Parts: sequence; structure tokens; C-alpha cells
Amino acid sequence: MSNSLTIQQIASAIGGEPSSGLDPKRAIRNLAALAAADEHAISWIDGPKWQSAAATSKAAALIPTADVGGDLPNRIVVADVQSAVADLLDLFADDTDQPEPGLHPSAVIESGAEIAPSAHIGPHCLVRAGARIGERSILVASVSIGRNVIIGCDCHLRDHVVVHDRCIIGDRVAIHATSVIGADGFGYIFRNGQHRKLRHIGTVVIEDDVEIGASTTIDRAKVGETRIGRGTKIDNQVQVAHNVSIGPLSILVGQVGLSGSVRLGAGCVLGGQVGVTDGLQLADGTRVAAKSAVMTDCTEPNQTLMGIPAQDHMTHKRELIRARRLPQLNERVVALEKKVASLEGATDH
Amino acid sequence: MSNSLTIQQIASAIGGEPSSGLDPKRAIRNLAALAAADEHAISWIDGPKWQSAAATSKAAALIPTADVGGDLPNRIVVADVQSAVADLLDLFADDTDQPEPGLHPSAVIESGAEIAPSAHIGPHCLVRAGARIGERSILVASVSIGRNVIIGCDCHLRDHVVVHDRCIIGDRVAIHATSVIGADGFGYIFRNGQHRKLRHIGTVVIEDDVEIGASTTIDRAKVGETRIGRGTKIDNQVQVAHNVSIGPLSILVGQVGLSGSVRLGAGCVLGGQVGVTDGLQLADGTRVAAKSAVMTDCTEPNQTLMGIPAQDHMTHKRELIRARRLPQLNERVVALEKKVASLEGATDH
Amino acid sequence: MSNSLTIQQIASAIGGEPSSGLDPKRAIRNLAALAAADEHAISWIDGPKWQSAAATSKAAALIPTADVGGDLPNRIVVADVQSAVADLLDLFADDTDQPEPGLHPSAVIESGAEIAPSAHIGPHCLVRAGARIGERSILVASVSIGRNVIIGCDCHLRDHVVVHDRCIIGDRVAIHATSVIGADGFGYIFRNGQHRKLRHIGTVVIEDDVEIGASTTIDRAKVGETRIGRGTKIDNQVQVAHNVSIGPLSILVGQVGLSGSVRLGAGCVLGGQVGVTDGLQLADGTRVAAKSAVMTDCTEPNQTLMGIPAQDHMTHKRELIRARRLPQLNERVVALEKKVASLEGATDH
Repeated sequence: MSNSLTIQQIASAIGGEPSSGLDPKRAIRNLAALAAADEHAISWIDGPKWQSAAATSKAAALIPTADVGGDLPNRIVVADVQSAVADLLDLFADDTDQPEPGLHPSAVIESGAEIAPSAHIGPHCLVRAGARIGERSILVASVSIGRNVIIGCDCHLRDHVVVHDRCIIGDRVAIHATSVIGADGFGYIFRNGQHRKLRHIGTVVIEDDVEIGASTTIDRAKVGETRIGRGTKIDNQVQVAHNVSIGPLSILVGQVGLSGSVRLGAGCVLGGQVGVTDGLQLADGTRVAAKSAVMTDCTEPNQTLMGIPAQDHMTHKRELIRARRLPQLNERVVALEKKVASLEGATDH
Repeated sequence: MSNSLTIQQIASAIGGEPSSGLDPKRAIRNLAALAAADEHAISWIDGPKWQSAAATSKAAALIPTADVGGDLPNRIVVADVQSAVADLLDLFADDTDQPEPGLHPSAVIESGAEIAPSAHIGPHCLVRAGARIGERSILVASVSIGRNVIIGCDCHLRDHVVVHDRCIIGDRVAIHATSVIGADGFGYIFRNGQHRKLRHIGTVVIEDDVEIGASTTIDRAKVGETRIGRGTKIDNQVQVAHNVSIGPLSILVGQVGLSGSVRLGAGCVLGGQVGVTDGLQLADGTRVAAKSAVMTDCTEPNQTLMGIPAQDHMTHKRELIRARRLPQLNERVVALEKKVASLEGATDH
Repeated sequence: MSNSLTIQQIASAIGGEPSSGLDPKRAIRNLAALAAADEHAISWIDGPKWQSAAATSKAAALIPTADVGGDLPNRIVVADVQSAVADLLDLFADDTDQPEPGLHPSAVIESGAEIAPSAHIGPHCLVRAGARIGERSILVASVSIGRNVIIGCDCHLRDHVVVHDRCIIGDRVAIHATSVIGADGFGYIFRNGQHRKLRHIGTVVIEDDVEIGASTTIDRAKVGETRIGRGTKIDNQVQVAHNVSIGPLSILVGQVGLSGSVRLGAGCVLGGQVGVTDGLQLADGTRVAAKSAVMTDCTEPNQTLMGIPAQDHMTHKRELIRARRLPQLNERVVALEKKVASLEGATDH
């Protein structure tokens, strides 16, 4: 974060209005959280609960949400604080340089691979025959691209990513380190006292604007394709099995596991460590709370599921509350038993 | 999937009998699911529930299970549909070429490594001193083989697999991309205000015909060995800790975690995201439902476990049902309380 | 394990006293578990429950805990058996040779990287401009070090580890194969029908004496730093999200997932597959049982949590027991209903 920008430059970049108390020529060197900010930093206040942290922050300038009150002589007013923060993250990033086009001498490019002139192929990469790498795409280092893989334009494949034969990756796709696209799905039939492997002859298609975290695995289809929809974002250590289909703009948080042939609609959000049983369908906008296990279809859109097995989240929460009141229920039954015994005694007379 | 085969060739390869309506010379170009099949494809019908999908499929030929009725002029009758599909997957696979024997010039082979003449060592691989690679084994690319590792014949180690020093791998073992065999187990003792590391001086033994998915980790033993039994199949992102022993022909689905010294018998099946506490023993044929956590031994064979903590699956299901009826139980207790109060009032008179 | 040591040498190394029945000059070739030990091995007895296994062990020498009784003519008495075993693991390790200092010719070192003369950079490694590698640190093979990374002294980065730009790693840090330090955190805002990426411009700081398992991912901070405290030990396949802070001497077992901005105190212990919701704080000494999901802060130190959602472990265990008695509770309510109906009939007369 070696960039330095004036208040005026920042305000202009984020479409904000600085308080009159802020010197427009003051230099800001970085973006920091409230508590970590020094007098060269700009920070933001994400609602009234951060008001006290803001009061003691040393930040040179602060961007508060509209509901933050109080006297802030160093505020910059913007319509959308989160967007302003996103802008500032872009402004202060120091890794924005596009690497030089070309092939590192240690890279191995098989004959028959087509690499766009503006692409960058870093050290120890491997691009197999028949693969195509689009304009301005970057293979950072030790990336392994299989035969007949197609990678679009402006992709960013980080260190040690593996893309197996024939997988298709769209434009502006980012894949973080050590993720594996197109490994064989997990399928066997038990015959003659052995697990016989079902070869996986399908592929993986990753649409435009997808981002995939580190150490994530997306298996190829048995036949046909595993597909990740446009603009979907997948976190680290997610397992996507063969023949899964994920709609556009979905979110899969870390360590999610999708079994074979699961179909997610558009705009689904799966919390961390969620699992989904094979073959299930989740409608558009399905949300699943972290750690849940989805074991039945969810065909109605925009439901929120929770639990193992997952059910409607409000039902699940009521069930949890009831479970926590079991000792009291037990005591009430004990009290009833005593009273009834007493009543029985009374009627015996 | 560039192969093209006639109906006659296919029928002969899978031991099937084509309907008289099928032209034996018709060319089939690929295998596809019912809905995705075009007029050049063959597909299969996996039971009566797919009958309607079969009716609208454009597939040139169909392989139905015996319980599929109706008029199918393009059917091919086989005794075992799943085996026929497995055969077809093999037939239409286009990645069956054995790569040329030899060492890629970018591979680093330390002196003292023994590599069979028919083995293939791909780009950027590393084979350390004392390692032995058997006949026809393939190290695809960027595979890292430690000192004194033994790898049998006909193994297939995909891109970026790591096998640490002294691990032993049998014949016909497949390991998918970025998996790590033989990292140190996780063991420390707390002394003098520090976690002191227990060195792991044991090894990992992987028996014949094992397949291991992508991004899976199998740790070496503290002393002795971690052992994966013959023909066992392990999915992606599975964690197998130090000194675990897995019997032959077991199945571990994605994201399973086995703690240290767990012992699985033969033919166990663990669903996705299952965890097993350290030191436990699961008898032959134990099945564990996805997302369960096994916290006690299961010494009787062929049990099915479910839940956190795992118990007999039928017991667990009954418990779930009862938990879901808690509101009704609560209402019944409320009704009883009213009645008893009323009875008490009556007897007070 | 090719070392051979006499009983006398071993006893001296571990500060133990051999029984008079043990020949001080007898050669011991390895350390083994009781059942696996042969007549050239030394083993240990970890409490009375292993007494019968000890009785049939062929081990040449045995190190029992103080509570192990019986006649053991080949015992070596020590004050702390676990420490003695740790010493023996160090003694019998055969991988203790420090590799030669220097750079493997296949490594790529960008100009501007500073590598200590005693460091070892193995085959196919990459060290980017501005990175610094301290004295005696080892990059085993195919390790990828980003720009301006700082790695301290005596670090051990195994095969295929990736450390992204600007991350800071202390002294004596061990990172196992394929782990990724400093990938982007998972953060987006939904604007104009797209998930807009929040660039992650922060870093990761790993303090001295940390050990990190294989296939673990530790994401960089959005702003500021993700920090792993001194002496903390992290197992395989653990996911640590952006801006997490972990205190010193904590333990994270395999497949744990920490969401963004989670703060763990000192000496926390998280069991396998535990998840923690974003932004939570767990006080010093918090222990979380395997498979639990922590969904609320735990501000009191030294609590033990269990369950989904996690609560006090004793409360959770009582809840489990009550849930398992639900059928009996149901039967008692049925019995009460009958009795009350009968009483109502009686009073109706």
C-alpha cells in the first residue's frame, strides 16, 4: 500500500463530499480499520455500533454510514459506504500491475497450444497441446493446463492451479492457488468383488466472472458437464462433485460440499461447511445456514434452510428452543405425575 | 469423445442385443444423459422413473433396465445396465493413450532414483534419491516424490501430487491432483509452556488398486504405518490422520475426516463430511450417513450409523421424528395441566 | 529408521534408569508400538490399560508410565513417558539432515530477492522480487514465494507451499505441502446485479514457532492483517478466513473453518471440523468439541463448548440425554392422559 492520495483525490474517486474541516490537500497513505488507522489513514464507520471506536480512531478521514450521528469534522459523506470502501480498496491496492505478456523460459508449452500474445505464462507453468489461453489472461506460476482446455480473456489463475483436459473457462475468471478443475468424479460400481471405476468422460464449464478460492475442487462430469454459472463466487476448500450445476450469481462459502448432480438455481447462498446430498435441486435464491446438511429438494424459491437435516430456518430455530426447554417439560410431567397420583389416591377413598 | 462406433460394435462390446428396429451400421458418436442426448448419442434408462425422459430423448439408442416397459424400438437389451454404462464410458473415453515412456527434460531426477523404462515422468516432476517408480507408472506433471518412496506398476499420479519420504504405494494406484501422502501427523505434547512436536517417523502404505481424489491428505504414522487397504476408494478433500488403518474395499466420500489411529474394517462406507474421533474402531461393513460424527466404537459388523454423535440410524431417525413432534407433546402437557387443575378443583369441593 | 543405539545410549538420552535385567550394550534399532515391536525395538506403555499388550510385546525394552505395575524386567523408568517418547522419536528420525545450502538450478529467483547464504531453495521453487528468506530456512520443492514476502530463520516450507505477496512469516515456522498463505479473502458486495469483489489489500502474519498442516488455507486481510499467534499449531485442511486473529499456543485440528474476523484467544483448542461464525470472539483457553458450530461469542475464558449451535458442553450433553429419553417422556404423557381421562370419568359420576 505505497500509494498516497489527497483527500480531494479520494473524494473525487469515491464521489464523496468532504467536511469543511478536512484539508483537501492532506495526503492519505492507506485504508485501515478504525482501531488500526493512524493519522495517515482513511477509515469507515459501518453503523452506529462503531461510533465509540470512531471517536477514538486516529484516522485522518472517516466515511460514516448515514445512520452514524455525532460530530465528525473529518467525515466524507457518500451515498454508499460499502461501494466507497470497495473503491478505496481498488485505489490502495499495490498489486494492480499487469505482468508483462509472454512466456517465462521455465514454462513448458506443448506444441499445438495457442496462447494469446497478451497473455502471461509464469514460471514452471505447463500448457498442454490443444489448449487455448485468451488475451490478457495470467497463469501466475506452476499452473498446469491440460489438453484442449479453453481459457477465455482476462482470467487470473494463481500459483499451482490445475485445470484438467477439455475443461472450458470463460472470461474474467479468477482461480486461487492449488484449486483443481476437472478431476474425475467419484463413481464406482461394485462388481466381481471390486469397485469398478466409472470413467468420467464429461467436462467442467466455468462461465464468465466466476471466482474460485484456494484449494477448491470441481470435478468433471461422468457424461456432459459440471457447470458453474456466470458471476458465481466460490470460497476456499469447497468440493463440487461431478455433474453439479450451479446457477449464476450464487455464493458458496468455505468448505461447502456439493454431492454429485446437485443443481443450484440462481442467487443461492450456502454458508460455510454446508453439505448437499446427491441429486438434490435447490431453487433460485435458496439460502442455507452454515453447517447445515440439505437432504431433500427445495423447489420453492427464496427459502432459508437450517439444520441437519435442513428444514425451514424458523421451524428449526423453534425446534432448537423447544429442545432447550426439555428439562422444564420433564419437570412439568413429573409434577403432573405427582398430582395425578394424589388425585387417584383421593378418588380411591 | 471423438470416437465413433456402430450399433453393432457397441452391442458386441457390451454384450447387448439390439432391437430389430436399430440399424446395426448406424454410427454412434458419444454417450449422453437422456435429456442431453442428440441423434448421434446412446443413452441409458435407469429405471421406470426415467421413462418419460426416455420418451422425449433424441438418443439414437437406449439401454433400459429390465423394469422399464413401453415400446422402445431403439433399445439395446443387456443383463446389467450399470456395467454396460461403465463399458461405454471406457469405449468413449478419449484420454486412454498411454503417454510415451521417459523423462521430460524439465523433470528433476536425483541420482539414485530408479525409474522403470516404461514409466512416464512428466514436466516439472521431482523424484528424490532412493525412490523407485514401477513399470508403466505415470507421474503427470509437477509431481513430487520423496526419498526412498516406492511406487508400484501402472500407477497414475496426477498433477502436483506430493508423496513424502519412504511412503509405499502399490500397483494400479491412482492419486488425483494436489493430494499429499505422508505429511507429518498432528501430534504435540505441552511442556515448558510450548507445544513440543512429536516427530512422525512412520510411513504410509497404500495397497493395490486404491484411488485417491484431489486435495486429499493422508498423514504418515508417528511410528509404524498409516495403511489404506486394497481397492479402497477415497474422494476429494478427505483427511486421513496418522496411524489410521482402513480395510480393503472401503469408500470415503468427500470431506470425510478420520482422526489419528482410527481403524476401519473392510467394506466400510463413510458419507460426505463424516468425522470419526481418534482411536475408534469401526467393524467391517460399517456405513455412516453423511455429516455424522462417530464418537464411539462400532464393533458389530454391517451397522448403519447416523447423527452427531452417531448412533444406529433407525434410532436416530425416530429421535428426529420425536424432536419434530415436541410442540405437540408440549400442547398435550398443557392440556393435561389444565385438566389436572380442574380435577384438583373438583376434589377440593 | 536406520539408526541403532544401545540401551545405555537411549537411557542416557531420555534420562531413564534401565532395569538390571536389561543389557546396557543391547542394540535397539527402532521405536514401535507395543504390538508391532520386534526384539530390536523399544516401546512404551501408556497406562495400565496397555498392560496386557505389554505382556505379549516382543519389544526389547519398555518405558511404562508410573501407574503400570507388574514384573517388567526390561523396563526403563523415566519421570515423563511422553517426553521420553518425543525424545526417542527425535533419536530415531532419519530425516534430520539439513539439506545443503544453496539454490537448485531449476529454481527461479527473481532479481531483488534476498536469500540467506545458509538457506536451501529446492527444485522448481519460485522466489519473487523483494522476498527475503532467512538463515537456514528450507524451501523443499515447488514452493512459490510472492513479492516482498518475508520468511524468517529456520523455517521449513514443504513441497508446493504457496505464500502470496507481502505475507510475513516468523522464525522456526513449518508449513506442510500445498498449503496456501495469503490468498484473497472471500468478500463481495452486490451492486448492479453483480457480486463486486472487495480487493484484499491486507496481509498475513505468522508468528514464530507456528506449524501449519497440509492443504490448509490462510487468507489475507481485507485491510490490516490475518494473524496466527506464536506457537500455535494448525492441522491439515483448515480454513482460516480474512482478518482472523489467533492467539499464541492454540490448536486447530483438521478441517476446522474460521470465518472472517474471528478472534481466538491464547491456548484455544478447536476439535476437528469445528466451524466458527464470522466476527466471533473466543476467550483464552476456549475448547470446542469436534464437529461443533460456534455461533455466539464466548467471552469467559476456559469454557468448553459443544453442539450445533455450540453451548456449554455439560448443558449440551444433558440435552442429548434428554433427547434420547423422549420416547419414555412420550409414554409417560400417554399414561398420564389415560389416568386423567379415567379420573375425569370418575368425577363425572
